[in-house]
Amino acid sequence: MPESEFVLRELDEEGVLLATLNRPDKKNAFHEPQWDAFADCLNEAREDPRVAVVVLTGAGGNFSSGVDLGSFGGDPPPPRKDGKKSGFFAAVDAIFEFDKPLLASVQGVAVGGGCTIAVASDIVYVGESLRMRLPFANLGLVPEIASSYTLQTVVGRQRANELMFTAEWIDAARALDLGLCARALPDDEVLAATMEKAREIAQWPVSSLRAIKQTLQATHKGAIEAARQIEDELMMKLAGSPENIEAVTAFMQKRKPDFKQFRK
Amino acid sequence: MPESEFVLRELDEEGVLLATLNRPDKKNAFHEPQWDAFADCLNEAREDPRVAVVVLTGAGGNFSSGVDLGSFGGDPPPPRKDGKKSGFFAAVDAIFEFDKPLLASVQGVAVGGGCTIAVASDIVYVGESLRMRLPFANLGLVPEIASSYTLQTVVGRQRANELMFTAEWIDAARALDLGLCARALPDDEVLAATMEKAREIAQWPVSSLRAIKQTLQATHKGAIEAARQIEDELMMKLAGSPENIEAVTAFMQKRKPDFKQFRK
Amino acid sequence: MPESEFVLRELDEEGVLLATLNRPDKKNAFHEPQWDAFADCLNEAREDPRVAVVVLTGAGGNFSSGVDLGSFGGDPPPPRKDGKKSGFFAAVDAIFEFDKPLLASVQGVAVGGGCTIAVASDIVYVGESLRMRLPFANLGLVPEIASSYTLQTVVGRQRANELMFTAEWIDAARALDLGLCARALPDDEVLAATMEKAREIAQWPVSSLRAIKQTLQATHKGAIEAARQIEDELMMKLAGSPENIEAVTAFMQKRKPDFKQFRK
Repeated sequence: MPESEFVLRELDEEGVLLATLNRPDKKNAFHEPQWDAFADCLNEAREDPRVAVVVLTGAGGNFSSGVDLGSFGGDPPPPRKDGKKSGFFAAVDAIFEFDKPLLASVQGVAVGGGCTIAVASDIVYVGESLRMRLPFANLGLVPEIASSYTLQTVVGRQRANELMFTAEWIDAARALDLGLCARALPDDEVLAATMEKAREIAQWPVSSLRAIKQTLQATHKGAIEAARQIEDELMMKLAGSPENIEAVTAFMQKRKPDFKQFRK
Repeated sequence: MPESEFVLRELDEEGVLLATLNRPDKKNAFHEPQWDAFADCLNEAREDPRVAVVVLTGAGGNFSSGVDLGSFGGDPPPPRKDGKKSGFFAAVDAIFEFDKPLLASVQGVAVGGGCTIAVASDIVYVGESLRMRLPFANLGLVPEIASSYTLQTVVGRQRANELMFTAEWIDAARALDLGLCARALPDDEVLAATMEKAREIAQWPVSSLRAIKQTLQATHKGAIEAARQIEDELMMKLAGSPENIEAVTAFMQKRKPDFKQFRK
Repeated sequence: MPESEFVLRELDEEGVLLATLNRPDKKNAFHEPQWDAFADCLNEAREDPRVAVVVLTGAGGNFSSGVDLGSFGGDPPPPRKDGKKSGFFAAVDAIFEFDKPLLASVQGVAVGGGCTIAVASDIVYVGESLRMRLPFANLGLVPEIASSYTLQTVVGRQRANELMFTAEWIDAARALDLGLCARALPDDEVLAATMEKAREIAQWPVSSLRAIKQTLQATHKGAIEAARQIEDELMMKLAGSPENIEAVTAFMQKRKPDFKQFRK
């Protein structure tokens, strides 16, 4: 497998592939090359008969701070060989097409895409340092990666509403209480525990694990497709809106945004 | 906004509209004029750019005892300007079309419609005096306001089954345990806490809150429509059935209903 | 009602039918005659106006160990009068067409079909001896009886994923924690408590209970149908696969299966 520095891969004897998001100086924020690398990692793990289960984690004590806002505005990304319009879209397709168990070992910052990828995963363990957030309201935007739907399948409708509308910070205890993770553990135990759970799963036939995931995902397919479509459509409307620009500007200027000006 | 005495409105500087169901001598039971007023309140709050979030509560220590059974049998309600066939239908449409965050601060009696409106809301806080009930089985009827579906999205399928089949009384501790509310608080704190949560949400751009709600509701739209249709159809069949008449008669006569007579 | 020795029936004065799976020497494993008897029991209880609620339990301290693997390979089952292709399919149809409340009192072994029938039920109480398992991954197979969908409606998506992928043993405390049951009780209390809950429900009009169940099930119908279809299709592919044969052979030989040989 051609490996990128941005997503490290380590395959063990049991068939567990550990994929590590690796831009630690950026809290593993995704720029285009990292989305590309993440898409490639999942797509190749899907086809690789040696891989039974993937465990996703982040380097340097954080999971991921989501889309790297600093990476915008440069040249458009080079076209991908698979025809996908960007690494981001390729990665989201790869997540929902990945047909083997996907576990997430999450600690530190898990914000935006870093949170929604965990929500889209099959099983999530978190470390005590967790600082999770769905920051779409405070950025003047909408949810992404079908999280407007997938979050509800994990924590129920009203709890999902609350997390999305408040954009509140979620710590490990609250994540466990809400059902956002299966286990909350000390930081220095969470990856080992996730790997152990992954190996427990990897002992079973890959053919069966893939078929089981196909049945578990079957009833979500249409809803995920619909969620991605409406999210993308509304994201196009809101990205670059005065509210969004105020949010980003205030963030850069380290001041509180003033959204009241927009209530005529 | 033309305001009705039956639904009081108070808009604060942060963009939070407090809507208070106000027929305290009837435990805020809904008669046609109150359904009308509730529909108007939500529809106007939707269009009002100053409103970011609505908090719904009840006057006099109760949320609502649901449809006012005593108000039946008079003249049919006057036709509404918007062409809806009754205030009730206008109100249910208004709930599901309301595209800003809707919080409910619920204490005391929350029965029938009073319960299902809370379930349809986005976030629910309850006071310790809560006496909630889905009284459809004991009235010989079926669920309403799409609650046969929405309740499942909040508490899951089997817990919803139990609440619907038993028509049991639910207190604050059980509501919290079931996940029917996000928080249970002393009565004299619940409204203040709900308002505080509403203001936390109201700080974000209204354009984003509306778009987020649109994404969160997208996958429920079809199911809510289908639930309302089958509920209405079966309600037409069962309202006025011998079982329903026995239930209402026994209630008026303050005796236990005898439903065994109907098992031939 | 023509009664089979494999599913005992006892109807009380309150309209509660106690149905007991009865092959205690086989831990109530289902062979064709027991599937037949179970289908007949539910179908006749559905039509019987004296029956308001059904409580399902197992004889001899176990609920059911699922499909009786030892019963395979004999003559094909005799054709059923109702045209269903087997007792198994008739039973699954009967479960999802049953339109009165179905409660399960589950103790001891509840594995495979024994677990998925509980999950498909409306309300589940478990005894402290519970040993529940969804053993599809370890058999090299896929979920059945629409459990790939119904399990998610009870415990949410990620918890369902975990139970399906690990095929782990679930005890009473974990079942309660996951929300797989409404109550966990000492073994000698669980049936009495389930019967009491059933009688609480049976006091309401049967017409209303049936209509309520129709509304509660309405939004699941399509998904259950789709789940059964994809499960059956994948089950046909995997049953008799080298992985499945290794799983069954290892089970018979009381050794650990070797699935690693299949990862080329």
